[in-house]
Amino acid sequence: GHPSVPLVPAIIAFGEMTGASGKDVLTAYVAGFETESRIARAVNFHHYEKGWHPTTTLGIFGTVAASALLLGLSEDETETALALAVSLASGVKANFGTMTKPLHVGHCVRNGMLAAMLARQGFTAAGDAFEHGHGFLNVFNGPGNFDAEKIFDNWADPLDIVEKGLGLKQFPCCGSTHPAINCMLKLVRDDGLKPGDVAGIEILTNSRRLPHTDHPDPRTGLEGKFSIQYVTARALTDGRVVFAHFEDSAVADPETAKLLPLIGVGEHPDMAAESENQFCAEVIVTTRNGTRLSARIDHELGRGPSNPMSRDELWTKFEDCAALALPEPRIRPLFEMLENLETLGSVADLTGLAALQAAPVREAGE
Amino acid sequence: GHPSVPLVPAIIAFGEMTGASGKDVLTAYVAGFETESRIARAVNFHHYEKGWHPTTTLGIFGTVAASALLLGLSEDETETALALAVSLASGVKANFGTMTKPLHVGHCVRNGMLAAMLARQGFTAAGDAFEHGHGFLNVFNGPGNFDAEKIFDNWADPLDIVEKGLGLKQFPCCGSTHPAINCMLKLVRDDGLKPGDVAGIEILTNSRRLPHTDHPDPRTGLEGKFSIQYVTARALTDGRVVFAHFEDSAVADPETAKLLPLIGVGEHPDMAAESENQFCAEVIVTTRNGTRLSARIDHELGRGPSNPMSRDELWTKFEDCAALALPEPRIRPLFEMLENLETLGSVADLTGLAALQAAPVREAGE
Repeated sequence: GHPSVPLVPAIIAFGEMTGASGKDVLTAYVAGFETESRIARAVNFHHYEKGWHPTTTLGIFGTVAASALLLGLSEDETETALALAVSLASGVKANFGTMTKPLHVGHCVRNGMLAAMLARQGFTAAGDAFEHGHGFLNVFNGPGNFDAEKIFDNWADPLDIVEKGLGLKQFPCCGSTHPAINCMLKLVRDDGLKPGDVAGIEILTNSRRLPHTDHPDPRTGLEGKFSIQYVTARALTDGRVVFAHFEDSAVADPETAKLLPLIGVGEHPDMAAESENQFCAEVIVTTRNGTRLSARIDHELGRGPSNPMSRDELWTKFEDCAALALPEPRIRPLFEMLENLETLGSVADLTGLAALQAAPVREAGE
Repeated sequence: GHPSVPLVPAIIAFGEMTGASGKDVLTAYVAGFETESRIARAVNFHHYEKGWHPTTTLGIFGTVAASALLLGLSEDETETALALAVSLASGVKANFGTMTKPLHVGHCVRNGMLAAMLARQGFTAAGDAFEHGHGFLNVFNGPGNFDAEKIFDNWADPLDIVEKGLGLKQFPCCGSTHPAINCMLKLVRDDGLKPGDVAGIEILTNSRRLPHTDHPDPRTGLEGKFSIQYVTARALTDGRVVFAHFEDSAVADPETAKLLPLIGVGEHPDMAAESENQFCAEVIVTTRNGTRLSARIDHELGRGPSNPMSRDELWTKFEDCAALALPEPRIRPLFEMLENLETLGSVADLTGLAALQAAPVREAGE
């Protein structure tokens, strides 16, 4: 799942409402992260394989835990809010690939925040709503398909966010394409490779990364995100991979389109399906004058705490994302404020900087 | 499940919004009823036994179908709205007995109406969200635990609402206590029985009705609803059973309390667990002067189309319910309007009569 999506909106909104500090919302984030991650231990992988969308069916409990901390819920109220959330958890994978998938996320956050607010006002729910025969574990996973003990085994020793960490995607496209993009960026940066130099490109990667990304001729922005050929060609033509490349109109870019027929993909002999290197690639370019250039990435950047993105790489990603919503002069100050979140006195300073201009409301029924 | 609760709020609200007639909302009700009832055929009884709250996990599809009709959704939009609702369906039985159970219902109606509105505005969801491997039937019921064919077998031939009909509860307490109440009301009405006459009362019923209603000493209103002794005593002391009898303070009523020790309950020899008569009772009273009076009910009133409540019995129930929310002079005209719903020109006339005075909003966080 994506552990931050159910947490960040809740901690920002409740952080602002309760006058929380940066440290308060970071603490709430960690509490939410551990809650999601711990419940996931009990129900994985059956939960996901069965067809639930865990980002939301588990994420709602993270929203509740983070919200409970910021709202100052008592232990009993927190128990009630978590139990209440069992009855509001939802989202199935059949709706992946449609607008309903991102709707799951907003629905989850709204419901988790609602559960916390209701519990604070004296609402009741069953204290055994997880372990009850008709509770979360049995109803969502089914008898025999979970291990409740794993939730509390060695709780916070260490914290999952410290040991397992969080993957951060460097580019706005499928994570399985990232190592190939970084190989190509390396050739552009270190070898001065230009599109006009290229006679042929070979992308070799772990075979698990190919079934969903081997799309030699993408027609839409969404298909472009899952085309290892398109994104690698974009890295060559543009020296970066950004949101604008996944507009439907951008996918037909003539310079990129010329490169696509020159690209072959396949399994790398050192990167078997079962190997430890799951997110890895080698890109080999044959130039028009017969030179052979290659670059290889064995561990994807940003995938876990041992291989973090640099500050510059984080900034590049942040700027690309923030520009979708904010005026340019506010982006750098917001980034710097987030870098120093732990020392921020009031979350209201952050929301002031990040607030959008109110958009005109669309008439219902139009 | 309770098929009307996800339907009535939606048809009233969308009926008013779209300027619908009484006939329009009745048609929408029937469409919603059949949709719920048909999906229930495919998933019962496993769905309920597993721990879902079918009133809401199936009811949401009724809300969608009724809403789709009133909003004039196309066939494609209706398919989208039903598919979207798969991702919003929720509610587990572990939370029965808490405030979260009725919350399931409001949550279900809100989500079903939202799904219909989103589909009308071009939202997308998966066309195969029911039958998909990660869709409703497989995720909620599990492979092998449903029969999808039953949804469309002989659709509307006849309509379930005509053949199976709808059970209407006559009194605001557990349905399993109703036959005993009616036996006692008969003794009061036909034999002039008074509390002071009684030396002993024997309540005999189908044994399936006893485990959840044999409560000789209820302490709260909620316990009173599930005490066959208390409600039968109330029928004797008051000649009726109404909402006011289930206030926490009412359960301790001294006159009723004096009767409770005189009451015994047991299985009737003619009413075995497996017999056709599931909702039946005989009440035998021994009076102080040694007379033996008895009354027997073999089929509960209001339970299915073959044994409907009379107009007077419906009015008695309606008046008791409506008095909780409406000023007395509006209750009779509203009842008469509902009796003639099929000829009503505009649902707005109905909502005008049924509208509550705005209540003061409670401050969030109080």
